[in-house]
Amino acid sequence: MKALIYNGPRNVKIADVPDAKLERPTDALVKITSTNICGSDLHMYEGRTNVEKGKVLGHENLGQVVEVGDAVDRVKVGDWVCVPFNIACGFCENCERGFTGYCLTANPGTAGAAYGYAGMGPYHGGQAEYLRVPYADFNCLVLPPDAEEKEADYVMLADIFPTGWHATELAGVQPGESVVIYGAGPVGLLAAYSATIKGAAQVMIVDRHPDRLRLAQTIGAIAIDDSKVSPVERVLELTNGQGADRGCECVGWQAHDPQGHEHPNMTMNNLVQSVRPTGGLGVVGVFVPEDPKGPDELSRHGQIPFEIGKYFEKGLSMGSGQCNVKAYNRRLMKLIHAGKAKPSFIASHHLSLVQAPDAYKHFDAREDGWTKVILRPAA
Amino acid sequence: MKALIYNGPRNVKIADVPDAKLERPTDALVKITSTNICGSDLHMYEGRTNVEKGKVLGHENLGQVVEVGDAVDRVKVGDWVCVPFNIACGFCENCERGFTGYCLTANPGTAGAAYGYAGMGPYHGGQAEYLRVPYADFNCLVLPPDAEEKEADYVMLADIFPTGWHATELAGVQPGESVVIYGAGPVGLLAAYSATIKGAAQVMIVDRHPDRLRLAQTIGAIAIDDSKVSPVERVLELTNGQGADRGCECVGWQAHDPQGHEHPNMTMNNLVQSVRPTGGLGVVGVFVPEDPKGPDELSRHGQIPFEIGKYFEKGLSMGSGQCNVKAYNRRLMKLIHAGKAKPSFIASHHLSLVQAPDAYKHFDAREDGWTKVILRPAA
Amino acid sequence: MKALIYNGPRNVKIADVPDAKLERPTDALVKITSTNICGSDLHMYEGRTNVEKGKVLGHENLGQVVEVGDAVDRVKVGDWVCVPFNIACGFCENCERGFTGYCLTANPGTAGAAYGYAGMGPYHGGQAEYLRVPYADFNCLVLPPDAEEKEADYVMLADIFPTGWHATELAGVQPGESVVIYGAGPVGLLAAYSATIKGAAQVMIVDRHPDRLRLAQTIGAIAIDDSKVSPVERVLELTNGQGADRGCECVGWQAHDPQGHEHPNMTMNNLVQSVRPTGGLGVVGVFVPEDPKGPDELSRHGQIPFEIGKYFEKGLSMGSGQCNVKAYNRRLMKLIHAGKAKPSFIASHHLSLVQAPDAYKHFDAREDGWTKVILRPAA
Amino acid sequence: MKALIYNGPRNVKIADVPDAKLERPTDALVKITSTNICGSDLHMYEGRTNVEKGKVLGHENLGQVVEVGDAVDRVKVGDWVCVPFNIACGFCENCERGFTGYCLTANPGTAGAAYGYAGMGPYHGGQAEYLRVPYADFNCLVLPPDAEEKEADYVMLADIFPTGWHATELAGVQPGESVVIYGAGPVGLLAAYSATIKGAAQVMIVDRHPDRLRLAQTIGAIAIDDSKVSPVERVLELTNGQGADRGCECVGWQAHDPQGHEHPNMTMNNLVQSVRPTGGLGVVGVFVPEDPKGPDELSRHGQIPFEIGKYFEKGLSMGSGQCNVKAYNRRLMKLIHAGKAKPSFIASHHLSLVQAPDAYKHFDAREDGWTKVILRPAA
Repeated sequence: MKALIYNGPRNVKIADVPDAKLERPTDALVKITSTNICGSDLHMYEGRTNVEKGKVLGHENLGQVVEVGDAVDRVKVGDWVCVPFNIACGFCENCERGFTGYCLTANPGTAGAAYGYAGMGPYHGGQAEYLRVPYADFNCLVLPPDAEEKEADYVMLADIFPTGWHATELAGVQPGESVVIYGAGPVGLLAAYSATIKGAAQVMIVDRHPDRLRLAQTIGAIAIDDSKVSPVERVLELTNGQGADRGCECVGWQAHDPQGHEHPNMTMNNLVQSVRPTGGLGVVGVFVPEDPKGPDELSRHGQIPFEIGKYFEKGLSMGSGQCNVKAYNRRLMKLIHAGKAKPSFIASHHLSLVQAPDAYKHFDAREDGWTKVILRPAA
Repeated sequence: MKALIYNGPRNVKIADVPDAKLERPTDALVKITSTNICGSDLHMYEGRTNVEKGKVLGHENLGQVVEVGDAVDRVKVGDWVCVPFNIACGFCENCERGFTGYCLTANPGTAGAAYGYAGMGPYHGGQAEYLRVPYADFNCLVLPPDAEEKEADYVMLADIFPTGWHATELAGVQPGESVVIYGAGPVGLLAAYSATIKGAAQVMIVDRHPDRLRLAQTIGAIAIDDSKVSPVERVLELTNGQGADRGCECVGWQAHDPQGHEHPNMTMNNLVQSVRPTGGLGVVGVFVPEDPKGPDELSRHGQIPFEIGKYFEKGLSMGSGQCNVKAYNRRLMKLIHAGKAKPSFIASHHLSLVQAPDAYKHFDAREDGWTKVILRPAA
Repeated sequence: MKALIYNGPRNVKIADVPDAKLERPTDALVKITSTNICGSDLHMYEGRTNVEKGKVLGHENLGQVVEVGDAVDRVKVGDWVCVPFNIACGFCENCERGFTGYCLTANPGTAGAAYGYAGMGPYHGGQAEYLRVPYADFNCLVLPPDAEEKEADYVMLADIFPTGWHATELAGVQPGESVVIYGAGPVGLLAAYSATIKGAAQVMIVDRHPDRLRLAQTIGAIAIDDSKVSPVERVLELTNGQGADRGCECVGWQAHDPQGHEHPNMTMNNLVQSVRPTGGLGVVGVFVPEDPKGPDELSRHGQIPFEIGKYFEKGLSMGSGQCNVKAYNRRLMKLIHAGKAKPSFIASHHLSLVQAPDAYKHFDAREDGWTKVILRPAA
Repeated sequence: MKALIYNGPRNVKIADVPDAKLERPTDALVKITSTNICGSDLHMYEGRTNVEKGKVLGHENLGQVVEVGDAVDRVKVGDWVCVPFNIACGFCENCERGFTGYCLTANPGTAGAAYGYAGMGPYHGGQAEYLRVPYADFNCLVLPPDAEEKEADYVMLADIFPTGWHATELAGVQPGESVVIYGAGPVGLLAAYSATIKGAAQVMIVDRHPDRLRLAQTIGAIAIDDSKVSPVERVLELTNGQGADRGCECVGWQAHDPQGHEHPNMTMNNLVQSVRPTGGLGVVGVFVPEDPKGPDELSRHGQIPFEIGKYFEKGLSMGSGQCNVKAYNRRLMKLIHAGKAKPSFIASHHLSLVQAPDAYKHFDAREDGWTKVILRPAA
């Protein structure tokens, strides 16, 4: 089958790879009709991970079931399904408590597995014609009858919408509260959108890309351009000097200033400064334990100079980590189905699989208007 | 009246100071019969804060009400009361949500006030004959009839027992879980005790002072001597390589190795290493935004090199900050009253007020057996 | 001063009564500019309670502070305030846990006090020119600068909006869920509105008054007319046979069928039938322990034949009781201030105080279009 | 194989039945070494359910895995496992939220399946030599190396210990609180034990069987004999007239007075009277939607006269339903393994399978000393 594979730093290509197929009686095989490029794919693309050449990328996948194993009871051939980026068994000590992003079974020796991702197990991704889905009854979200009509919305349930939602959950956003979000990429935008759905009174979002800030405004968020103002000062100004009730980190370790210099602690410490005493932080931007190409000695070992003094004085709390997609995807699906959420507002490009290498280039360059790419392998 | 005052680094003395008296109709005046020296008093004692000379120290206070203002409805003259170290109004935006440690009224411009403490407002402490208690109806915990009999237990409700409990709340300790606690001082010991009361299955505590480790064992905790073994390795060993479910930081920014060298990030990063993926951390050891006498440039500005990479990869969460005593003191009082908690097991010395300067010296030197000092000003 | 007093069943009148005044140093005196008639006032109006003649009614009050006692620190003369219907001390065992609707101080011997209400203490209500507010620092919600401009919205914070919100909290409504609400009076409408703000995917509301059902539709709820269809069957139909995730009771013990016959268990058992296994119920419609005029022997003693068998089989949960207004009013105020909530959509009439007796008559008759009356004593 | 089957009211017998065997690739086959008789088995025994003749009873099962299907990944032949009484798929909409007691897959058309129980699906029970366990990876709790040594403790994890724990969870028991439990059968005793483990300050338990009340006292509970005193008055007395913070119903619909007359609402209304305003109730005693042999018209249709007036006035909450065993069994296992819980204190008899019919007779008669029977089919 055709698939997009990693071929080295800033080098991805479409290749013929062995067909995805059932390997265990609990597997399903899904014909992929929509698969997104994720901002976290760019960490691999830029050579900042140890992903192996030949890996099929793609962890935001939606399609139609074409075959199921003997032990699959719920999912049927013909079902339209959206597949969480986490691969989870459903029965380990972490999965049974809902931590499907930290499954102990699917990637032995590590907590957590995913499709097509560095360090997340031997699984190929879905930027391809077909995808093998392990533990299919547990992992497949079966979509309602409007699956095809709202496919661009539903595909956001694989990762980016739940991950934005997760940021607001980790931060503890409650109705009536104020929230500041660092990063207006797809995750940040959907964190802002999630906060709005939950009834936040005031949603502020910090970025510097005009296209992203414009999109943020279309969903009612207050856009803060950190190439023009101090985001901390602006947040304090907008909150009567108190700081926001909650804050979300949607950038991660490759945070950089408007001039492009990386400062892995920039958004974290800005958050500590921007959030009021007793507040909460949600960190979903990726930080890594080792980064040989990091800008300084600390960052190369996964450390940042962190403002623990202010953090403690304010009595802050901070949740972190990758999203447990299954914790939220069904209820977000219901919001889409009921017409109360339309996360596809972030989608800027619908392309074929062969256009993927080019799309990686534009998206990685953060070119104006390249907010989010949906690939359509079956088109 | 007689009181213990701060007189410069490693210099406290008993002095005659103006009598504490009612200043507002909502005040009560309490004759102090028990007042503890707290580990956090040592930060002031050692000259690591900007506390002013002449300040009466002491924020762990118990005594008998001798006078109340016109607007006091609940508290009566003659009541035995334990007074939370936080001074809270009860009606500001933070107090109304239960964050009495972050009161916006009692110390304007800052979130949080306390008796006899650096940066916590103009209030004198209770290492004295009398104490003025603002917002007395809100702040006084009226004790049951066995107040005098169990005075050494009840005085622990002012700070140290709720603070230990808070560590386990912030960490999210649930029955059946494993917990590691860094620091077996009074707070750490009472965090271990709190975890036990809550039904933790396994409580491990890290320190190097033999007297503290012995005490820890008397309450069923597993003592880990970090001058002899790697605490991280030992915790992993005791938890089948997984790490503890929860971890508590009960040391703070003056963390130091067995040789006495300060490493402000030592316990924090050990916690990140010791706790399993999906786990929670509770940080009640004090960290400060500025420390001019800190051991390195970062620490002088309240920053530490923090293992955010591992933290994120594990999906950890971390709560922090000083305890909101009123959140827990009533229920802990009921446990003491019912004979189900006896936090006075940490008390090593019962002394008169004039012995206080000497007691500071011994306690600051962490001399063997000086675990916790209760001063008895009325004795 | 002028005030509306209870003068016997279906008999209220405007009378000259002694001026409200400060009685304790913690009191404030508020000049009332908006005061609503509540559906629960009708229980008194209809003679179904033991309220005493001469009582000034009115527990949904907003106005301007004209005097404060010596012990009032926060609230200032000139402040615009909305006053929660519960009178709470802020420092008793229930208030300190946030249960301000169950204050043990303000109405000794009972848990809970209120203005102008049967069995809720000796306090006069605010359908009058002035209102005495006890424990003013704790009870007054100080409004933002747009207080007068949005007065019709902010007055809903005294009771009806928080009570609607409370119904959804007790029921446990989460984003993406379906909710059924029995009763489209002011509380039911604001419960539906609250569920919508919280991100419910599907909000269904049962009533039979066309004006109320129309209003419900304007906020996006699905109106179910129980004079035309079986509400249980309709809910099951709308939820694929499963039942709603959550249900709210906003009617109370005087529930009656479309023909006007009272069945105190009608809405409760319909809820049990309408809600899916594992679901939650929130009961804010009032039920009383004694009702001498009840339609049958059980109801006269505050009992109903309750479907405990189905309830248990489904594993339902049920929260109940009057709202703790302070638990929600500040965050709802922020939503109004930010333009994200406009609860005045329920207000049908803005009248002067002298028009109040007539308004009671129309409202009690549930005349078409009489959804909610705001009285303006100062106009 | 040999098994105990239902053969009509008060008639069970040991019979030769077809061997349990694997039916699906996700099944495991367990050789049963311990299987308890449950109080809820007596509802069937007494002919108060529609269970079919020939059904193998027994839903509290422990044993050793002897065979697994092709799709079983985690559970291995030779593992000692304790099997939750609920049969759950792990992937339906209820299971994925942790409501394994309300599985939508295992017993289509109903929410919830179980072994050997009326109305809970076609599954045979474990009072037999072998048991088929569906969805084995999800349903089997693999025990630690001390499985055989502590078998009498671990078998309590199948139902009775988690169910007692569930009662306290539904009631919302917090450390330092007071709890009253109606019913000192195995579930009630383990609810009391659970409350104690969680740090309740005061645990009261109501029954009239001297052997049960004695056992309650051995775990530190206050025994209240309702054949001698009014339990409501006694609870009020023991709680300064306030009532208990929390209450648990561990009796169910066959509640009867000391003279043996059934009053299905007796314990429910006593709870409402015994618990303080703002309190919580947990109902795990079984109530059924239809009971043709009920003592009155209401009860025959699953209704009880319920004190909703008092319930509402007090603002109580009430959770109900059968336990989701997987929500608690692992952490309770850890407590047993760590030596911090020993639920076998309720076990009065260890018998062979052939003694089971006789044991039913004694247990049903509530003969003195027959608290809990463990059958040992393999012995």
